Amino acid sequence: MLARRQFLGLGAGGALLGAAGRASAWTASAPASMREPGAPFTAYGVPSEWEQEVTRLPTANRDVPGNGASWSPLHLLEGIITPNGLHYERHHNGVPRIDPTTHELLVHGRVRRALSFRVQELLRYPLRSRICFLECGGNSNAAWHRQPIQSPAGHVHGLVSCSEWTGVPLSVVLAEAKPYTDADWLIAEGADAFAMHVSIPMRKAREDGLLALYQNGERLRPENGYPLRLILPGWEGVTNVKWLRRLRVVDRPVMARNETYSYTELLPSGKARQFSHTMDVKSLLLQPSAGMRLPGPGWYLLSGLAWSGRGRIRGVELSTDGGQHWRAAELQQPVLSKCLTRFRLPWQWDGAPTVLMSRATDTSGAVQPAREQLVAARGRHGYFHYHAIVSWAVGQAGDVRHVYGTGTGDSHDSNAPADIDSGWF
Amino acid sequence: MLARRQFLGLGAGGALLGAAGRASAWTASAPASMREPGAPFTAYGVPSEWEQEVTRLPTANRDVPGNGASWSPLHLLEGIITPNGLHYERHHNGVPRIDPTTHELLVHGRVRRALSFRVQELLRYPLRSRICFLECGGNSNAAWHRQPIQSPAGHVHGLVSCSEWTGVPLSVVLAEAKPYTDADWLIAEGADAFAMHVSIPMRKAREDGLLALYQNGERLRPENGYPLRLILPGWEGVTNVKWLRRLRVVDRPVMARNETYSYTELLPSGKARQFSHTMDVKSLLLQPSAGMRLPGPGWYLLSGLAWSGRGRIRGVELSTDGGQHWRAAELQQPVLSKCLTRFRLPWQWDGAPTVLMSRATDTSGAVQPAREQLVAARGRHGYFHYHAIVSWAVGQAGDVRHVYGTGTGDSHDSNAPADIDSGWF
Repeated sequence: MLARRQFLGLGAGGALLGAAGRASAWTASAPASMREPGAPFTAYGVPSEWEQEVTRLPTANRDVPGNGASWSPLHLLEGIITPNGLHYERHHNGVPRIDPTTHELLVHGRVRRALSFRVQELLRYPLRSRICFLECGGNSNAAWHRQPIQSPAGHVHGLVSCSEWTGVPLSVVLAEAKPYTDADWLIAEGADAFAMHVSIPMRKAREDGLLALYQNGERLRPENGYPLRLILPGWEGVTNVKWLRRLRVVDRPVMARNETYSYTELLPSGKARQFSHTMDVKSLLLQPSAGMRLPGPGWYLLSGLAWSGRGRIRGVELSTDGGQHWRAAELQQPVLSKCLTRFRLPWQWDGAPTVLMSRATDTSGAVQPAREQLVAARGRHGYFHYHAIVSWAVGQAGDVRHVYGTGTGDSHDSNAPADIDSGWF
Repeated sequence: MLARRQFLGLGAGGALLGAAGRASAWTASAPASMREPGAPFTAYGVPSEWEQEVTRLPTANRDVPGNGASWSPLHLLEGIITPNGLHYERHHNGVPRIDPTTHELLVHGRVRRALSFRVQELLRYPLRSRICFLECGGNSNAAWHRQPIQSPAGHVHGLVSCSEWTGVPLSVVLAEAKPYTDADWLIAEGADAFAMHVSIPMRKAREDGLLALYQNGERLRPENGYPLRLILPGWEGVTNVKWLRRLRVVDRPVMARNETYSYTELLPSGKARQFSHTMDVKSLLLQPSAGMRLPGPGWYLLSGLAWSGRGRIRGVELSTDGGQHWRAAELQQPVLSKCLTRFRLPWQWDGAPTVLMSRATDTSGAVQPAREQLVAARGRHGYFHYHAIVSWAVGQAGDVRHVYGTGTGDSHDSNAPADIDSGWF
């Protein structure tokens, strides 16, 4: 194992104990936790009191407190699963309170058999589980700003999370409803006070759409759509309609607010990208990342996440010299399609200032673009689907800052408009 | 897809709506959740108020409240991941309160370099993630009773859970400590008031032992060893020492209480099985299971879990006629080594009384035994490692009861001693 050889004898962290005598002294002093009985059993566990700062970060609209987003603290997590309590949130008018015993899903419109389903009925249908990521189309939107934002990585890129979702394949329910041949779209409606409406191509719904009932083993959390949520693996979060109450089968999209005014991108040509459903290939180095400090030269573990809505992550390359050289990171197995993938690589910091970058490639062949490439292609009027390479500058003192490109200023877009902070509410 | 064909037109659950008029009436009545803004964002989410009964079931020693177990409600869960709040607990003297900033792990004994590690130091080492099950050696112990217990499945078999664990490979830390050639065992010690000591063969420690720091993305929960736990994939829970403070490298096992008095099995020969570390191949049908009721004849989804400490699950067969015929269940992909595996199969109940069974096979070729086989091999004096086929009888009224074998009484062990309820505390 590469990592093992590198760490051997290098004293990455462990303190060497001089003699057996030291160990005896150590073991003689039993800690307080061994001298009195511990706490009793609990019916539903919670995190340690020392982890109270590991929370989501809500950023809500001042005038409409239920409209906004709450960010997963990705920079404080490891592995790929997001615990349910920390899964990102994006709501348009708060989290509805829905009694699962009376909630119904209606499937109607251009079908031969209009159907309705209660939750208990859906549980008798074939279920499938899938570990996949969910990402808001507005994730990383601060990276469109003219100046690199210095917030912790999770507070900028944390509108992505990953769960094991279990539910009924949409294809099963649709087959039972027998849509007419011209039924190319579905309008999915949520039971929240925003009355979320989203148009879904029938092809995607049939391919791998899921009527999700469980998240990481237990029933969905309220803020993730309890009791029923649409899951479209790899597709923009807004299409994964929460609190799902209706699927209307139609022959054309509904052109709802969230697919016209919002979740679209004005391109340099003056045209807007619409129905940009599939999330692009992306990666993010989290250890280290903005706001952290390396205590001194020596060995560190570079660790982060990569994902793509187009399939599996094929590889992640890391540069520790501002993009001059790239090395393949190790991908944690199993690497699953449309799923977060953890990458890691040991790195010996020599104490000199440098810039760290990660670049992902997926099995469709798509490569994560440099920031300049993305801005050139998409312009600066959009607010969605930011997925360019992220750069972290390490300073002489070990401080880690967000920079664009190599941080030399070359890649700044000096003609960019002023930052827009609330454009997506 | 098999399931899809079977469900088509059979009306497994969904109600057919007569006419378009019905759908219009339905949509006109927007539910209360759409008429007022929902709840605000939360920093750390909790389950729905309608899921308050989905909890662990603590069963503690009356005289020592921190000694006992708390069962995962497997019969109320789906998929393979156990949410952290519901992971089973087994403690011997409560849950210690440990400050992660001062906690140390000592590696010493028959090594050339005695080492100590703080948590922050371990985080700079190479990390690995692994999704695997953890099962208490005492799981399913009530199944040794003379009469089949009628508690819900999770309250009998719920000392098994499954998480994504992330931590430092034990092999890396051991290589740095440079054990002497006769160092065949490790004594792992926990920082709880029981001072848990367990002997671990060096071979297993090096093969896939993990010094776990994260569980399902976030730092370990207190009841699962915060801030540091030993994970030995596929091995008896007690060897996965929680609140790990010391690894003493030695040339023979320590013969601690939990590997002599307890976690051993007296065989019919009068000898005791000791160091029975690897968890055997096992499966458990959860939908339906004891205490549930099928509302009437029709289609149901049979769903459950299988696992083996010896590798991957190769197959799970289900019988819906008391063991006369067996059909292969569908295994949810990906099927991982030493990991819970979800199996499912649609089943049409004709309304007649019958007996449901599941039988797992693993990639080592081991097949889950019938209860008679297990009792013949192990006798009735043990209390650990029960892994025989579980039978659920479905009555005329749809009621589901636990039975042994086919429930006809043939397989009862009428010479068995009286039930022992507290034998393992």
